[in-house]
Amino acid sequence: MANKFVYMFNEADASMKNLLGGKGANLAEMTKLGLPIPQGFTVSTEACNDYYKQGEVVSQEVVSQIDQSLAELEKISGKTFGDNDMPLLVSVRSGARASMPGMMDTVLNLGLTDVSVEGFAKATGNPRFAYDSYRRFIQMFSDVVKDIAKSKFERVLDEYKEGRGIEVDTDLSAEDLREIAGQFKKIYEDAIGEPFPQEPRIQLMEAITAVFRSWNNPRANVYRRMHDIPYSWGTAVNVQEMVFGNMGDTSGTGVAFTRNPATGENKLYGEYLINAQGEDVVAGIRTPNPISTLEDDMPEIYDEFVAIANRLEQHYKDMQDMEFTIENEKLYILQTRNGKRTVAAALKIAVDLVEEGMISQEEAVLKVDPKQLDAVLHPAFDEKALAAAEVLATGLPASPGAAAGKVYFTAESAKDAHENGERVILVRLETSPEDIEGMAAARGILTVRGGMTSHAAVVARGMGTCCVAGCGEIKINEAEGFFTVKGKTFKKGDYISLDGTTGNVYGEDISTVDPEISGDFATLMGWADGIRTLKVRTNADTPEDSAKAVTFGAEGIGLCRTEHMFFGEERIFQMRKMILSSTEEERRLALDKLLPYQREDFEGIYEAMEDRPVTVRLLDPPLHEFLPQEEDAIQKLADDMTMSVADLKEKIASLHEFNPMMGHRGCRLAVTYPEIAEMQTRAIIEAAIAVKESKGYDLLPEIMIPLIGDVKELKYVKDIVVKTADAILEEKGSDLKYLVGTMIEIPRAALTADQVATEAEFFSFGTNDLTQMTFGFSRDDAGNFLDEYYGKKIYEADPFARLDQTGVGQLVQMACEKGRQTRPDIKLGICGEHGGDPSSIDFCHRVGLQYVSCSPFRVPIARLAAAHAAINNR
Amino acid sequence: MANKFVYMFNEADASMKNLLGGKGANLAEMTKLGLPIPQGFTVSTEACNDYYKQGEVVSQEVVSQIDQSLAELEKISGKTFGDNDMPLLVSVRSGARASMPGMMDTVLNLGLTDVSVEGFAKATGNPRFAYDSYRRFIQMFSDVVKDIAKSKFERVLDEYKEGRGIEVDTDLSAEDLREIAGQFKKIYEDAIGEPFPQEPRIQLMEAITAVFRSWNNPRANVYRRMHDIPYSWGTAVNVQEMVFGNMGDTSGTGVAFTRNPATGENKLYGEYLINAQGEDVVAGIRTPNPISTLEDDMPEIYDEFVAIANRLEQHYKDMQDMEFTIENEKLYILQTRNGKRTVAAALKIAVDLVEEGMISQEEAVLKVDPKQLDAVLHPAFDEKALAAAEVLATGLPASPGAAAGKVYFTAESAKDAHENGERVILVRLETSPEDIEGMAAARGILTVRGGMTSHAAVVARGMGTCCVAGCGEIKINEAEGFFTVKGKTFKKGDYISLDGTTGNVYGEDISTVDPEISGDFATLMGWADGIRTLKVRTNADTPEDSAKAVTFGAEGIGLCRTEHMFFGEERIFQMRKMILSSTEEERRLALDKLLPYQREDFEGIYEAMEDRPVTVRLLDPPLHEFLPQEEDAIQKLADDMTMSVADLKEKIASLHEFNPMMGHRGCRLAVTYPEIAEMQTRAIIEAAIAVKESKGYDLLPEIMIPLIGDVKELKYVKDIVVKTADAILEEKGSDLKYLVGTMIEIPRAALTADQVATEAEFFSFGTNDLTQMTFGFSRDDAGNFLDEYYGKKIYEADPFARLDQTGVGQLVQMACEKGRQTRPDIKLGICGEHGGDPSSIDFCHRVGLQYVSCSPFRVPIARLAAAHAAINNR
Repeated sequence: MANKFVYMFNEADASMKNLLGGKGANLAEMTKLGLPIPQGFTVSTEACNDYYKQGEVVSQEVVSQIDQSLAELEKISGKTFGDNDMPLLVSVRSGARASMPGMMDTVLNLGLTDVSVEGFAKATGNPRFAYDSYRRFIQMFSDVVKDIAKSKFERVLDEYKEGRGIEVDTDLSAEDLREIAGQFKKIYEDAIGEPFPQEPRIQLMEAITAVFRSWNNPRANVYRRMHDIPYSWGTAVNVQEMVFGNMGDTSGTGVAFTRNPATGENKLYGEYLINAQGEDVVAGIRTPNPISTLEDDMPEIYDEFVAIANRLEQHYKDMQDMEFTIENEKLYILQTRNGKRTVAAALKIAVDLVEEGMISQEEAVLKVDPKQLDAVLHPAFDEKALAAAEVLATGLPASPGAAAGKVYFTAESAKDAHENGERVILVRLETSPEDIEGMAAARGILTVRGGMTSHAAVVARGMGTCCVAGCGEIKINEAEGFFTVKGKTFKKGDYISLDGTTGNVYGEDISTVDPEISGDFATLMGWADGIRTLKVRTNADTPEDSAKAVTFGAEGIGLCRTEHMFFGEERIFQMRKMILSSTEEERRLALDKLLPYQREDFEGIYEAMEDRPVTVRLLDPPLHEFLPQEEDAIQKLADDMTMSVADLKEKIASLHEFNPMMGHRGCRLAVTYPEIAEMQTRAIIEAAIAVKESKGYDLLPEIMIPLIGDVKELKYVKDIVVKTADAILEEKGSDLKYLVGTMIEIPRAALTADQVATEAEFFSFGTNDLTQMTFGFSRDDAGNFLDEYYGKKIYEADPFARLDQTGVGQLVQMACEKGRQTRPDIKLGICGEHGGDPSSIDFCHRVGLQYVSCSPFRVPIARLAAAHAAINNR
Repeated sequence: MANKFVYMFNEADASMKNLLGGKGANLAEMTKLGLPIPQGFTVSTEACNDYYKQGEVVSQEVVSQIDQSLAELEKISGKTFGDNDMPLLVSVRSGARASMPGMMDTVLNLGLTDVSVEGFAKATGNPRFAYDSYRRFIQMFSDVVKDIAKSKFERVLDEYKEGRGIEVDTDLSAEDLREIAGQFKKIYEDAIGEPFPQEPRIQLMEAITAVFRSWNNPRANVYRRMHDIPYSWGTAVNVQEMVFGNMGDTSGTGVAFTRNPATGENKLYGEYLINAQGEDVVAGIRTPNPISTLEDDMPEIYDEFVAIANRLEQHYKDMQDMEFTIENEKLYILQTRNGKRTVAAALKIAVDLVEEGMISQEEAVLKVDPKQLDAVLHPAFDEKALAAAEVLATGLPASPGAAAGKVYFTAESAKDAHENGERVILVRLETSPEDIEGMAAARGILTVRGGMTSHAAVVARGMGTCCVAGCGEIKINEAEGFFTVKGKTFKKGDYISLDGTTGNVYGEDISTVDPEISGDFATLMGWADGIRTLKVRTNADTPEDSAKAVTFGAEGIGLCRTEHMFFGEERIFQMRKMILSSTEEERRLALDKLLPYQREDFEGIYEAMEDRPVTVRLLDPPLHEFLPQEEDAIQKLADDMTMSVADLKEKIASLHEFNPMMGHRGCRLAVTYPEIAEMQTRAIIEAAIAVKESKGYDLLPEIMIPLIGDVKELKYVKDIVVKTADAILEEKGSDLKYLVGTMIEIPRAALTADQVATEAEFFSFGTNDLTQMTFGFSRDDAGNFLDEYYGKKIYEADPFARLDQTGVGQLVQMACEKGRQTRPDIKLGICGEHGGDPSSIDFCHRVGLQYVSCSPFRVPIARLAAAHAAINNR
């Protein structure tokens, strides 16, 4: 036997989780601990991978190992699979390395046939129980193995009960259930075109194959992509002897947590049902009892269960989620795992376990998933108010958080309303850069068109503003200022609420609660800060965002984009004048007007950041982004500038680019218009001198030149910056220091980083653009085909959300090495959106970056992820 | 003395060309040979680089070495610089490593002043000569050192002669010339604001500085970029004692070639003038005499010159271009260099020198610049007919060659006229992919808009069709079918002629002659083929291009693009139907209609290529490129497809991409629409089986999957290709072999080439796209800023014309190494436009590619360049 694909519970343990899945490994571990576990075996994840490698076929080797283990299980149980008198019945359940909804779950009572159900009835002396088990088996097998809609079976059951005047399932007699089983088999035969399988070994192999198949269903693929679970892990299958909670009133089944999974309270929490099996507890037909009442019903069983629960928590050093069954007053544990929990519970449990002396601070830090923090870092709806509200429509959950306010349909009116102290929701067909002020003024943004990477979605996430995008159900009339959905009309000033985490839109004003870092959250973050070595900065363009980021623990600004600063009313006019200038002189006049605004922006940001470092990126986007697109706006601008509409349109057309992402932007602007870089440098340096003098902060502005691909390009722009800055410092007699560095976001910059570092005092990896260029697809356009790529498993993760370590990461690592080779003390950081993604942060730690930078709301996530990285890479 | 920056002629030799420039090194070499050379010294190219390093200042060290060398020269000549009685006079001339027009050329007679000119007149006993020398000096210094327009001086001279009734310069008296010198000094003072310098050392330093400065003037920068000359080479400056051809009738000056530079004929060729200096020979005021008459005028001098010429040719083993001066019956050689020559002469001289036993075949191969061949590889105008023609307008020389024919304004009419046997010139405002058939039918293409990288230019170069682009002088009315220029109107059917090498447009039918490879050309190419190790393939999409390429020596097709094949009338309709299909079934129906066309295309190409390998690339461009853009065409298509114009427009809009270069194209199309790849594979394989059977050729189709960035992407498409191909082979019982490989054109593909090679049987480097992605700018948009980049010397060469070896080359090399690591026998080639560029071919040789592929007309260039690479890298 070349490979061992199947393991009995009694020949494995918890350390074999990768091979046997979480469920299988824990069943083995509990067997080892001597707990009352129905025995069985686990078909390994390698068998699953083998199944796919063979072209979706279970190889002969795996089949024969299953047969062998089944024989072994027959020996242990003293029963025979397929026996007509007292058959061995089993459950079949999937169990991957990480718990994964979306895959096939459970088939119970497998092994029953028309013949053996009779024997089973006799042997147990309980025909009602036997037929109940059989009809459940048929239903589950049909649903999860053969994908026959569950509702078909439920309808038959409901009609049967109605016909007999029966209210609850438990009132059905053995004969009723036998008849129902017959009808269930007919549903199966009608759907599949052949009779329900009467050969238990075929039932078993079909169920196992169905688990393998479910690893590759669309729901599982989506879930894996969301949670960074590699397809290559595969799933295991657990085959376990059945025990029965539905044998009468001395039997039952339940689930319990060692602590409260919603609050973290250290108190046994759970539910059970007497005379029930499997799904009955969660199905909602009968109301389960709280676990505490088990103490009254079966005091000995309860004590035994509490002792086991405590032992398991001590053993796994974490809150446990357990399934149990009581068969004729005998307790069996069917499963244990570290329980899923809300973020609040996660924080409390982690801190409590440390205080109880059970785990270390580091272990506590590892227990909280950084991604989970997202939920507590945005405003949320008041839960009671939400429960009473009705969903009006659903769009894409483009930027998390909750928001309620009055709808406005233009950026201008949104801004005005905000200034009048109103809570504003901006509703647009889609947004464009012109809407930026209105977006900044809004608590939430709703668009009818556009996906997860549309302008609205990207900007909103950067701002930490709640956004629901692409809500196509809504018909909007922007011109007249109303939208309709489900026959209702919402006009300017009407209230709506948005949930950016679910994509839900509500037609009313739902109250919200704000996030804060305190209590257990603050304690845990403190521990994380003590562990991590990566600094965490923020991407912020305004004093408000900067201040918010500081409260979330930001240690500096890693990316201050200057382009958003030019969209204010007077600014955009001067900006457009600058762009439309035909001589350097005209351009300088317009830039002179922009200088005071820009200087004021930086002063505000420096004041918010105090002594912390601030990296300012020089103007980056192509200039045409600042020009108006709509007829009205063009007419107005033409009037303002006393030029003809035709001339203005021609100028706008002349700035058109075929591939703007690869066009005249970044440092290329500063090469062609050095005066723009001069003005920005002046604003950065003059503001720093002013704030240094007035507040006494120890400022060190970092001036970042974007999009360079060649050291000569960097040197050209750096020379302009240094000449301008040094002249100001000399004129003002200031001893302010500053750094000049660059973004590494073009593959060629990474490939030639040794040369680039001769000029750059720091590198900041712009992994958004670097990903685009390295993959050769633009974020705006990739949406058209990436779904096919996920579906066909060419990509498993969105490379814009999770750094592609194989390709893009290779360039990052190369640039780090080459940069340090030239300049050993070079500052290295990342400012792409990956800076807030935990798996990417781990990579940043490993390649030796000094800091990551992310949007303010992701700062705590990054702090925690950085601590994880420090621990996991020791 | 840390660095030696200045060398006397008698302390150097020809091997020091890099340091002293061509002129300086040859003057030193001739001094060493004992030839009659006026002595002097050379300020080195390192001094020039030092000048720029110091911020355009000649460092003290260089100045003092110049002074020292000047003192040495005084010793040798027995004269003193700045002496009032018999001053040492010098010429100052630039001299770079490679001969470079566009830089400062020559200042003669430097050292004369108001005072010393009198002494010089007395000492030579020739006042007329002395003043002539002085006025020439003032004029040359003003022109080349101070940039004062030459015409100002010529006007004064002309007016003076007219006033005196004098016809030729030689009739001017000493007094006349003295007066003219006075007026020249006034022009100088008016222009510069200070008197003409009377201090010879200042004159000298200003002249030397002017040579350094001229290294960086715009003309020199453009020339360098065109000829791959690095800015870092710098120029040297030669300071040489004057000898005078203008001392009377026993003096003279001339230029001569050891062989005829136009034809290569082995016969002394040149011109001279008696009593003249420098530029007089080429200025055209006096008609020079052919060199042969010197035998009659001064037989001894002639014999001496012939002997020297022969000796120099023997010494340098190449045709020499010499300047000489006779001063009072004494011969001086002022310069020798390998002479510039026409391509015909280059070929003849190279072959003759081998036949004369002077050089080896390898040396002969190295003597012909591959780029020069371009001129003989396209049709050219009959020279006599051209001489009589008048230029109508001038546009950009977008694709070389000459063409004459009748103008047509639409692709359709051009195609019809071509089918009727007419010679066609297609004239368009600008071209789009829809025009492809008309472009293919045309002998020449003229566009009013668009640059060197416009659609028309790129496609025309690929086809080897003559193209003049962006000819803005022309006003075109496509709708009514005429254009006007300079008041003339040209209607459909009128004759015009285009010169794609100069950009000239002629308003008449000029006869052309076709290129062929024969005689010396064929001989030399045969030698090159014996030397080179790189194979040369062609990029060809039609049987015609394939056949043409074979006559030029192509050894296979490296890139057969399939997209152009879909623009035929019936094809484009089916193609559009395919694109607009909403179900796979509809798409397959349209593809079935396209299959026979595509199969026929491949059959024709296979037949043209016989046993040679053919690489076919699967569909690459974004689908929206196939959809119509104009109202009429949209209306027609909507009618054809019985859908509404509005629906069609919406569908077209839905295919719009923000950055099409980074959008849904290449293998991404095959991932989303596998049926397209299936159809193309079927056509490739079925055609190969058919031609293999009917002609017996040993075919090996190479199927190339474009734009991959991940091995899984390649595997997905490869699986489709292999499954389809193998099914056909099995069905037809054929033993045809085929390869499946990929283009490496996305940085990530290069970075992960070790993985990609697990699936790819060959790599073909698509360096056009790889350059775009690595630099992060698109070819279509970079035109907006690249000129600034050249001007500011951030880039010295167009990375789309010459492979960027530092950045892009690093990826190519990495991919070669990683590819071979996985698959040691992997086929490696290049199919980007760089495949026809000599310096890039040298790189391809060095990294170990097996072949380059280029457009048919560049095949001989590539063959020769590959031979150069083989020799130069031994």
